[in-house]
Amino acid sequence: MENIIIDFKEKPDLDNPILIEGLPGVGNVGKLAAEHIIDVIGAVEFASIYSKFFPPQVLIDDEGVARLVSNKLYYSKAKTGDHSDIIFLIGDYQGLTPEGQYELSSVMLDMLVDFGGKRVFTLGGWGIGRVVDKPRILGAATHTHLVEEMKKHGIVFSKDEPGNGIVGASGLLLGLGSLRGLEGVCLMGETSGYFIDPGGAKAIVEVLASILKRDISMTDLEEKTKEMETVTAKLKELDEMPEPNKDDLRYIG
Amino acid sequence: MENIIIDFKEKPDLDNPILIEGLPGVGNVGKLAAEHIIDVIGAVEFASIYSKFFPPQVLIDDEGVARLVSNKLYYSKAKTGDHSDIIFLIGDYQGLTPEGQYELSSVMLDMLVDFGGKRVFTLGGWGIGRVVDKPRILGAATHTHLVEEMKKHGIVFSKDEPGNGIVGASGLLLGLGSLRGLEGVCLMGETSGYFIDPGGAKAIVEVLASILKRDISMTDLEEKTKEMETVTAKLKELDEMPEPNKDDLRYIG
Amino acid sequence: MENIIIDFKEKPDLDNPILIEGLPGVGNVGKLAAEHIIDVIGAVEFASIYSKFFPPQVLIDDEGVARLVSNKLYYSKAKTGDHSDIIFLIGDYQGLTPEGQYELSSVMLDMLVDFGGKRVFTLGGWGIGRVVDKPRILGAATHTHLVEEMKKHGIVFSKDEPGNGIVGASGLLLGLGSLRGLEGVCLMGETSGYFIDPGGAKAIVEVLASILKRDISMTDLEEKTKEMETVTAKLKELDEMPEPNKDDLRYIG
Amino acid sequence: MENIIIDFKEKPDLDNPILIEGLPGVGNVGKLAAEHIIDVIGAVEFASIYSKFFPPQVLIDDEGVARLVSNKLYYSKAKTGDHSDIIFLIGDYQGLTPEGQYELSSVMLDMLVDFGGKRVFTLGGWGIGRVVDKPRILGAATHTHLVEEMKKHGIVFSKDEPGNGIVGASGLLLGLGSLRGLEGVCLMGETSGYFIDPGGAKAIVEVLASILKRDISMTDLEEKTKEMETVTAKLKELDEMPEPNKDDLRYIG
Repeated sequence: MENIIIDFKEKPDLDNPILIEGLPGVGNVGKLAAEHIIDVIGAVEFASIYSKFFPPQVLIDDEGVARLVSNKLYYSKAKTGDHSDIIFLIGDYQGLTPEGQYELSSVMLDMLVDFGGKRVFTLGGWGIGRVVDKPRILGAATHTHLVEEMKKHGIVFSKDEPGNGIVGASGLLLGLGSLRGLEGVCLMGETSGYFIDPGGAKAIVEVLASILKRDISMTDLEEKTKEMETVTAKLKELDEMPEPNKDDLRYIG
Repeated sequence: MENIIIDFKEKPDLDNPILIEGLPGVGNVGKLAAEHIIDVIGAVEFASIYSKFFPPQVLIDDEGVARLVSNKLYYSKAKTGDHSDIIFLIGDYQGLTPEGQYELSSVMLDMLVDFGGKRVFTLGGWGIGRVVDKPRILGAATHTHLVEEMKKHGIVFSKDEPGNGIVGASGLLLGLGSLRGLEGVCLMGETSGYFIDPGGAKAIVEVLASILKRDISMTDLEEKTKEMETVTAKLKELDEMPEPNKDDLRYIG
Repeated sequence: MENIIIDFKEKPDLDNPILIEGLPGVGNVGKLAAEHIIDVIGAVEFASIYSKFFPPQVLIDDEGVARLVSNKLYYSKAKTGDHSDIIFLIGDYQGLTPEGQYELSSVMLDMLVDFGGKRVFTLGGWGIGRVVDKPRILGAATHTHLVEEMKKHGIVFSKDEPGNGIVGASGLLLGLGSLRGLEGVCLMGETSGYFIDPGGAKAIVEVLASILKRDISMTDLEEKTKEMETVTAKLKELDEMPEPNKDDLRYIG
Repeated sequence: MENIIIDFKEKPDLDNPILIEGLPGVGNVGKLAAEHIIDVIGAVEFASIYSKFFPPQVLIDDEGVARLVSNKLYYSKAKTGDHSDIIFLIGDYQGLTPEGQYELSSVMLDMLVDFGGKRVFTLGGWGIGRVVDKPRILGAATHTHLVEEMKKHGIVFSKDEPGNGIVGASGLLLGLGSLRGLEGVCLMGETSGYFIDPGGAKAIVEVLASILKRDISMTDLEEKTKEMETVTAKLKELDEMPEPNKDDLRYIG
C-alpha cells in the first residue's frame, strides 16, 4: 500500500488557487473556521486523502455506514476578478508521526503546485490556558512583506507568541512551502485550549473574509459561540465555588 | 526480510468467498466467535501470515514446541448452493503500529480479491463498561443496502454507537475494502470489555449463522458462557461488599 | 546508511556450525553464559554488527576509546570429531523495535545459512520473581525430536512456563529459523529477574557443556555466583528487618 | 520527500577541514560553545539541513517570520598555516529517533568526507546532578593516540565517566566516523544538567582554543556565566531554607 493516496473525484480547473488548511488542532479553531467557510461559500469536495500515517480507523455516519478516516480537498472558484480561487484542506486527523506530518504536508504542497498555486493560509488555535473574551489573531508568515500585508488586516505579530513556534501541518506547510518558493501565512486564533472554540474560529473567519475580500456569513458561528459561552459560564461558576478540603474534613471529622 | 509473508500450505479453489475476520480485540469477542465457527464447521487451515508488524515473539505449545506468532487463514467450501465459500482470518495479534495495521489489512484484501471474493465480515466487541445480560449486535457497513440487509437479521445500527468509530483490522478491512469496491460489514457484540467474553461471541455466532444460512452448533460456546457467568457473578458479590476505608481506620486506630 | 552492517574481520571456514546466541536479556543469563564459554574455549571474534536498530550510542573503554554499540560474532572450530564448530552471537543490545528485532534475527540466520549451519541454540533467563537456589533450565524447541533430545540433558519442558512465550532474539531465531528449515532450541535459566545472575548462567553452561560434549571450566562463574550470593543474602537480611511504619509514627509522634 | 535535505547556499573550497558539532544536549553546553566560536571567529553559514527526523515544526523570529526547524553548517577558513579549516554543525534539534540519529550522522560524515575532512570534534555536556564550580572537560576519542594528544590539553579521560557512554550525535559521529577511518574526539563539559550552562561551554571553548591554536574571545561567555551564577546562587539560597513539613502542619493545625 502506498503511504499516501489522493483519490480525485474531479480535477477542477483552477487559476492560481490559494490553499487554506484547517485540520484538527488546538481548540479545533482552524478546523471549525475552514469548515464554516466551505459551508457558507459552497465549496465543492474534489478529492479524498488516505494514508497509513492516519490512525487505522473508520468513522460511522448516522446511517451506520463506515468510511476510512481521511483528509478532504474542496475548491471554490472566484466569482469576481478581485477574488482568488481557493483549495481547502480539512479532515479527521493530522499525521500521527513526525515522518507522517512531513510526508503529508509535502504531498499537499505538490498538489498545490500542480494546480498552479503559490500561496498557503494555515489556520490554527493558540492556547493560552484561560477563557478569552476577545480573541486576537496571531500571525506568522514566510516573508517579511507578508507580515506587513497581514498587519493591515489587524493580525498581531507578537514577539514570543507562540514562543515555541508552530507544530504540525499549520507550521510545516509554511516551512516546507517556503523551501519551494511558496508564500504562507499562519493565522492563530487565541483560545483557552480546553474546549472546542467557535469563538476563536469566528475571529479567524472575520479576518480571512477581509483578506480574501469575500462576504462570509457569520450567523452559524455566532450561534455556536453563544452556546459555548453559556457552557463555559456555567463551568466558571462551578469553578469559583469553594472546594471542600478533604484533609481538613478528615481531621475535623 | 519482507514486511509480510504469506506462507501457503495449499491454494484452495474457492468460489466468490466471503472473508470473516476474527482477530484479537475487545473481550476477544471476534476471535472467540471466528474460532468457534472454524471448529464446528471444520474449516481447513491453508496459510500462515508472518510479519515484522507483529511482536518479535514465539509461543510455546504444551509439548514445548515454539512457533512464531502469526495470523492464519482457513477456508470452508459451501456444502449447498445457498451457502458461500468462506475464508477465515484469525491469529495471535493484530499489527502493532498504524502502518502495520494498514499494510496487513491491505495484503489481506489483495488475497481476498485474488480468490475472487467481494465481501468481508469483521467481528469484534463493543465494550460498554458493565456486565451485559443480553448482548446486542451492533453493526456498521460499507454501503446503505448492506445496512438494510443486516437489520433484517436483528443487527442494531445505532447512532453514536460506537461513537469513535472502529479501530484496527475490523475497521480497516471495511474502509480499505470499500476503496477497492468491496462490500463489508462489521458485527460488534456488546461486552463489558473487562473479560474474555464467550457470551458476546455466542451472540455474534447466532447472527452470523442466520446471515450465512448455516447451522452452527452452540453447545461449546454456551458452556463457556455459563462458566464465565459463574466467575463474574462471584466477582460481582465481592464488589458489593463494603470496602474498609483505610483513612478512617488509621484515624480511629 | 544500510539498516544492518556486518563488518567481517575474517571469513572463517566452518563445517556445519551451530549458532549460540547470548544477547542481553532477563538477568543477562544468556549473555553471561555465552561470554563465559567464549572466554574459556578461546573463541575468536570474526565480525561486528552495527545497526540503526541499536541505540545511537558509543561505549567508552577504560583507556577513553569510544566504540559504536554493536553485536559481535565469534567462532570456535571443533577440536575432535564429536564436537561441532560454533558461531557465537553476543553484544551490547538487542534491536530496539519489533521491526529491528525481525531484521536483525533474519540477517543472523542468513549468515548462519551462508556458513552452512543448520542448528541454533538461544540462551536466556526465565524471571520468576524470587531468588532461586537451584535454577532449572527450561526449554523450548522448533521440533518434537529436539524436545526429546534435550530432555535427556535434564532440560525441563514445562507446560505454561514461560506462559507468554519467548520475546526477542531468543524467540525469533527459533521462529524465523523454523520457517527456513533450521532447528532451534532455547535454553532459559531460572532467575529472579532482579539481578545480573551468574548462577543462572552457570546452570546453562553446565547443560550446554553436556549437549556440546565439551569440557568447560566453571571456576570463574562459580566465583561470580558466590559473590552474588553474598550480595543477595545481605539484601535478604535487610528485607526481613521490620520496616517502621511512617503513618503510625506520624500519628503517635 | 527525501529523509534528509542538505540545501547548500555555497560550496566553500576547504582544505582538510575538521568538523565541530555543537547540537542541543545536556545543559546545551556543546551548542553554546559552538555558537560562541562561530560568532567570535565570524564563521559563514553555507548550508541548511532539513529532515523528517526533526520535529514537524517551524520557529518564528522576532519579525514574525517562520522558518522550518533545521541544522546549519558554517565554515571558517584557516588564517595562518598552523590553523585548520573548520566546518561547524549546529541546529535546533537532533534526530528524534535512533534511526534518524544514525541517518543524520551518516549524512554529515559523507559531507565531511566530500570536503576532504578527516577529523571530528563533538561537544557536549556531562550532567553530574550538582552545580559545578570548576568544570572539568571529560574526553573520549576514536583512537589511543588521540587520547594521548588530548590529555596534553588538560582533557580528563576518566574510567567510568561517562559510565553509559555517549548518546546522540556526539557519540555517533565518533562511532560511525571510526568505521570510515575518521578520527574523532568528544569533549564533554561538566555541568549540573539542570540549567543551560554557559560556564561548561566556556570551559570547552578554552580547551578547543588550545587544541585549534586559535585566539577566541571569552568576554561574552564570561558575562553569561556570571549572570547564570547569580541565578543559581539565588536558587541555592531558596533551596537551603527549611521547607515547612505539610504533614506536621496538618497534624498540629
